[in-house]
Amino acid sequence: MERVDHLADERNKAEFNVDDMKIVWAGSRHAFDVSNRISRLVANDPIFEKSKRAVMSRKELFKNTLRKSVHAWKMINELRLSDEEGIKLRSFMDQPGFLDLHWRMFVPAIKGQGTEDQQHKWLSLANKMQIIGCYAQTELGHGSNVQGLETTATFDPKTDQFIIHSPTQTSSKWWPGGLGKVSTHAVVYARLITNGKDHGVHGFIVQLRSLDDHSPLPGITVGDIGMKFGNGAYNSMDNGFLMFDHFRIPRDQMLMRLSKVTREGKYVASDVPRQLVYGTMVYVRQSIVSNASTALARAVCIATRYSAVRRQFGSQDGGMETQVIDYKTQQNRLFPLLASAYAFRFVGEWLKWLYTDVTQRLEASDFATLPEAHACTAGLKSMTTSATSDGIEECRKLCGGHGYLWCSGLPELFAVYVPACTYEGDNVVLQLQVARFLMKTVSQLSSGKTPSGTTAYMGRAKHLLQCRSGVRNAEDWLNPGMVLEAFEARALRMAVTCANNLSKFENQEQGFSELLADLVEAATAHCQLIVVSKFIAKVEGNIEGKGVKKQLKNLCYIYALYLLHKHLGDFLSTNSVTPEQGSLANRQLRSLYSQVRPNAVALVDAFDYTDHYLGSVLGRYDGNVYPKLFEEALKDPLNDSVVPDGYHEYIRPLIKQRFRSAKL
Amino acid sequence: MERVDHLADERNKAEFNVDDMKIVWAGSRHAFDVSNRISRLVANDPIFEKSKRAVMSRKELFKNTLRKSVHAWKMINELRLSDEEGIKLRSFMDQPGFLDLHWRMFVPAIKGQGTEDQQHKWLSLANKMQIIGCYAQTELGHGSNVQGLETTATFDPKTDQFIIHSPTQTSSKWWPGGLGKVSTHAVVYARLITNGKDHGVHGFIVQLRSLDDHSPLPGITVGDIGMKFGNGAYNSMDNGFLMFDHFRIPRDQMLMRLSKVTREGKYVASDVPRQLVYGTMVYVRQSIVSNASTALARAVCIATRYSAVRRQFGSQDGGMETQVIDYKTQQNRLFPLLASAYAFRFVGEWLKWLYTDVTQRLEASDFATLPEAHACTAGLKSMTTSATSDGIEECRKLCGGHGYLWCSGLPELFAVYVPACTYEGDNVVLQLQVARFLMKTVSQLSSGKTPSGTTAYMGRAKHLLQCRSGVRNAEDWLNPGMVLEAFEARALRMAVTCANNLSKFENQEQGFSELLADLVEAATAHCQLIVVSKFIAKVEGNIEGKGVKKQLKNLCYIYALYLLHKHLGDFLSTNSVTPEQGSLANRQLRSLYSQVRPNAVALVDAFDYTDHYLGSVLGRYDGNVYPKLFEEALKDPLNDSVVPDGYHEYIRPLIKQRFRSAKL
Ligand SMILES: Cc1cc2nc3c(=O)[nH]c(=O)nc-3n(C[C@H](O)[C@H](O)[C@H](O)COP(=O)(O)OP(=O)(O)OC[C@H]3O[C@@H](n4cnc5c(N)ncnc54)[C@H](O)[C@@H]3O)c2cc1C
Ligand SMILES: Cc1cc2nc3c(=O)[nH]c(=O)nc-3n(C[C@H](O)[C@H](O)[C@H](O)COP(=O)(O)OP(=O)(O)OC[C@H]3O[C@@H](n4cnc5c(N)ncnc54)[C@H](O)[C@@H]3O)c2cc1C
Repeated sequence: MERVDHLADERNKAEFNVDDMKIVWAGSRHAFDVSNRISRLVANDPIFEKSKRAVMSRKELFKNTLRKSVHAWKMINELRLSDEEGIKLRSFMDQPGFLDLHWRMFVPAIKGQGTEDQQHKWLSLANKMQIIGCYAQTELGHGSNVQGLETTATFDPKTDQFIIHSPTQTSSKWWPGGLGKVSTHAVVYARLITNGKDHGVHGFIVQLRSLDDHSPLPGITVGDIGMKFGNGAYNSMDNGFLMFDHFRIPRDQMLMRLSKVTREGKYVASDVPRQLVYGTMVYVRQSIVSNASTALARAVCIATRYSAVRRQFGSQDGGMETQVIDYKTQQNRLFPLLASAYAFRFVGEWLKWLYTDVTQRLEASDFATLPEAHACTAGLKSMTTSATSDGIEECRKLCGGHGYLWCSGLPELFAVYVPACTYEGDNVVLQLQVARFLMKTVSQLSSGKTPSGTTAYMGRAKHLLQCRSGVRNAEDWLNPGMVLEAFEARALRMAVTCANNLSKFENQEQGFSELLADLVEAATAHCQLIVVSKFIAKVEGNIEGKGVKKQLKNLCYIYALYLLHKHLGDFLSTNSVTPEQGSLANRQLRSLYSQVRPNAVALVDAFDYTDHYLGSVLGRYDGNVYPKLFEEALKDPLNDSVVPDGYHEYIRPLIKQRFRSAKL
Repeated sequence: MERVDHLADERNKAEFNVDDMKIVWAGSRHAFDVSNRISRLVANDPIFEKSKRAVMSRKELFKNTLRKSVHAWKMINELRLSDEEGIKLRSFMDQPGFLDLHWRMFVPAIKGQGTEDQQHKWLSLANKMQIIGCYAQTELGHGSNVQGLETTATFDPKTDQFIIHSPTQTSSKWWPGGLGKVSTHAVVYARLITNGKDHGVHGFIVQLRSLDDHSPLPGITVGDIGMKFGNGAYNSMDNGFLMFDHFRIPRDQMLMRLSKVTREGKYVASDVPRQLVYGTMVYVRQSIVSNASTALARAVCIATRYSAVRRQFGSQDGGMETQVIDYKTQQNRLFPLLASAYAFRFVGEWLKWLYTDVTQRLEASDFATLPEAHACTAGLKSMTTSATSDGIEECRKLCGGHGYLWCSGLPELFAVYVPACTYEGDNVVLQLQVARFLMKTVSQLSSGKTPSGTTAYMGRAKHLLQCRSGVRNAEDWLNPGMVLEAFEARALRMAVTCANNLSKFENQEQGFSELLADLVEAATAHCQLIVVSKFIAKVEGNIEGKGVKKQLKNLCYIYALYLLHKHLGDFLSTNSVTPEQGSLANRQLRSLYSQVRPNAVALVDAFDYTDHYLGSVLGRYDGNVYPKLFEEALKDPLNDSVVPDGYHEYIRPLIKQRFRSAKL
């Protein structure tokens, strides 16, 4: 298979042990083993073949995804895969489908919001996939504003049922994945109404389709919302619409862990704290952050390998041309993304720890750290998904014209990735939540409340408001303390400036509205600080493997100094660094690029992606790009015939100038 | 048709006359009339229907494009449309196809590089479309580096022919639009070899296919390069590959305006100056700039209208929720793009003038202004296409989840637009050309050479290097002189800093390589100055129409101050503004947003786009978004049946737990 290796020279140049780095990237030897084994399992199974997605019709693509999904489930059972392995298998399958929503949204919703009885009843069905569920929250008219949902669930004491109804067109459910054609059940969010009183939005388990013949139950209208971005991408998934016409469900299908409706129609809150729900959110968002790193790493892997294969200009005396990865512009666009992929990986790892910590505290009824954890995951979800979306497109551009070919893998990756900026919270709306939390934290500083966790640095406000960066030469920018202080000073000063400006308004809410744009910037600065500080913590800690730590240090400082340069305006206007220090940072950055350069290909090899998973002719492990581009081209349906369909009807009449008479 | 108008309130709010603005946008009443008439002609013709593009197979899409193209050509002839009208018709057809390459590349190449005889012979065929041509320059291995092309054209004195040959796989032509399946002819670029001597790359007219049955001629292998980004987008076009196996063409098919090969095989340069070729480049690139404004305006039109329709949060006492366009974050993302669309429009208009000016000078053998014009168009092509690509995606995100639907029009627009960053010069490679020109200009300052045109400001280096911005309050940022000076100081100081850093290197070329990233930033600063200065010149000039000038002034300063904020690091580190002045600029920006807000919908109405051209349910003129989203959804093939194809094979066995035995 790997007979030729056009990248062998690059691999030989590496100054560290790639196998060791693979472990660090995966998180542990065990995690590496699982990923490595499952990814090869998927890659070698012809059912998971994915190279034809771009030319499949919507129906073929959808059906093919059903096939893959059911096959995956079959493998999970037959091979008795663990949960961890099953998750990996679904992710290496690399095609959005109903399994994702069933396992990632439907089941957790019941776990998080169902009573023990409900869990027992529904999870035993769901866990065996005897029912298929989706998560039906968003409506045509309401996404971000969940409290504005219009679907109603009115309790009917006569029959002991809820009547689920869609009162307006905009109240139709719209977007839920797996809803359109596949799901038999859904967790539906609706306004609970008892005795004429609106208790706000609650979750209900609703059966949508007959388990006998899959037809929608009477009172239910359901279908697919149509094509989305890209050729393949999310078009494999039946995101759906759903309308209820006075559809009845038994009372015990309201998810009643947090509050319930009694037989008499009384609304009773349980003593289970509402905060528990936020635990789930922290979980979902931390997994989005780790997916961001996976996706960005894919794009970076493709662009890095291709940039080492591609040569353009600079041939001396008829020799080879320059590899485009040697151009400083290419490095300046690519290496910060490489560094970001690693940065997001490590902050994702840390978020996993945070989730465990939060869960343990919640179980002990300690809610103190929850708001901070919640703000932090919201902000990191927003920041990492935005950066990843932009990063994938930049990687595509880094591949020149060939990046625009579907078989480069990058258009597909982009199209399938970008909605991560929107689902699970619109990224701007999330940053505003972070900003609100920051403003609260700042306002409590004077009252002596000590900020904790990722806002702990704000406790050093006095120092951070007046410190001056001690950077004197380029090397100082490799000093973790100096880098951190610059980021902390910038974040804190931006937050404090916002707070000061807010305080000039009589009406706080009005002030907040007026300053939204500044607030988003302050929130972003805070989130970037978190990522930088977690990366620094990682590289200052114990890391095994030959030469590995050195490489990660380089990437860590590339990440930090790239952000510093990109947001230099923030740093300078808050006086966190001087123009001279800014230009020293730039000089250091250039020198770091040179150090990364010989290691670049090995650093993306460390992701251990199979060619199947990458799905890219440009990013092939063996670098054998050009012959394979040809092979791919020849597969296009247009190449079935030399003279294309349409020649006789259109081209011939045109060039023979008979088009006036031809029936067009 | 426009019975309901959900945006009527918005339209009533406008403080200017939209019809007058339409004329300003179009450039003249005549231009408006043509656009308006032709766009409606296309919109009302069912053959130009385009809503099904996303669900067409590659072959259907390709054939449908043939149909549209030939129909367009038929209309152009039957209605005796002028050139201007014909160009508009093709552009409102809104689907990449072979006509574009034939008219925009093949014909101009022959006009620019062919002798009079050659023009006479070939253009008379091409103008009637008795032959269909494409532009075959790029190869699998070489795009940016045109001088590195590998295809050879070896003169054979025995037969008085050139032998066109593809010596390697990487020498295959790869990318030319219209090549794969349609073109009968191509202008092929190949290394000219006579008597064993390589004279570099020249153009040749090559027949590819039989005019009788369209089969490729012996010695020619040609086909389609496969799927590209998106569902519809460029997949309607047969970008192709092409290999020659010692294919012979008569000597007189070398394009011989600039140099020729005699019967004896002697290579002779003609006395026609080579610079003339650059004139064509200036032309092509100015049209790319004006297309950038058209594309960005489409995206902005969709996002603006939808942002006025979409309401989310902020309902007080059960009233209507807030229109998302009222959120300052939304304005801060959207209005600078609205301003950019206008900015690119006016700089495009100015480039048209520049092209005429350059052409006249070339005809009078005055080549003095050419390098500057060339650098300026290269830079503006790069800057406007990059900003437009990013802007379209931002507009998509501004539409929340629904922006991800294909029927929002934005995925298609993005997929079809982004290659503009790559073709006609990779944007980074172009900025490096600009940088090279700037470095030369700076280096000549001391020698007393006065820079001209868009670099004229560099002649005031002495002043600009030491001036301090006089801005004292937010209103000063509406002062054209102060704004310009800040941009000039920034651009000049960045260029001079680069030049100083360059001079520290012994080897200039090595220094240039080392500083590429800084050089790109200096070039960008220069280009932004050009756009700002042309926008200011426009709004300082004579503009007719009620309230029109006021609106354009607002947009002009939004554009400038948004750039200032985005690149604040540049402005601060070059000391072109102080942090306080930067924050005054931000305050002014916010106030401008409020002034634009009531006019936003009318400002996008002024683009006069038809719903057909916009191709967006979210951007509909009447704002009737929600019912139409449903209508679109119902058209998806997946909705042909309630129970999907695949149920019996996959879903049923799964939920009935019979998948172990089912054949998967
Ligand atoms: C691929 C995909 C899969 C999905 N899957 C599911 C699913 O399985 N189940 C489900 O229930 N939903 C799903 N969704 C829906 C998704 O959760 C929503 O699209 C998302 O919550 C965003 O809401 P919205 O679309 O209403 O955006 P909007 O809120 O309408 O956003 C529009 C614009 O308004 C801005 N905005 C909104 N509110 C504010 C504010 N207060 N302040 C400032 N700006 C504001 C936003 O920033 C954005 O620019 C999916 C969506 C996609 C794209
Ligand atoms: C949709 C589409 C239509 C096209 N139509 C045609 C057509 O009709 N006819 C035709 O002949 N061609 C066509 N092309 C090809 C197009 O002209 C080339 O793709 C383009 O010139 C870029 O060249 P490349 O692909 O070789 O990129 P590369 O040069 O390989 O670029 C790869 C990377 O290297 C970087 N790079 C390259 N050189 C340097 C340098 N000196 N310094 C710093 N960085 C550098 C680039 O910035 C980029 O990041 C088309 C392409 C597309 C996508």
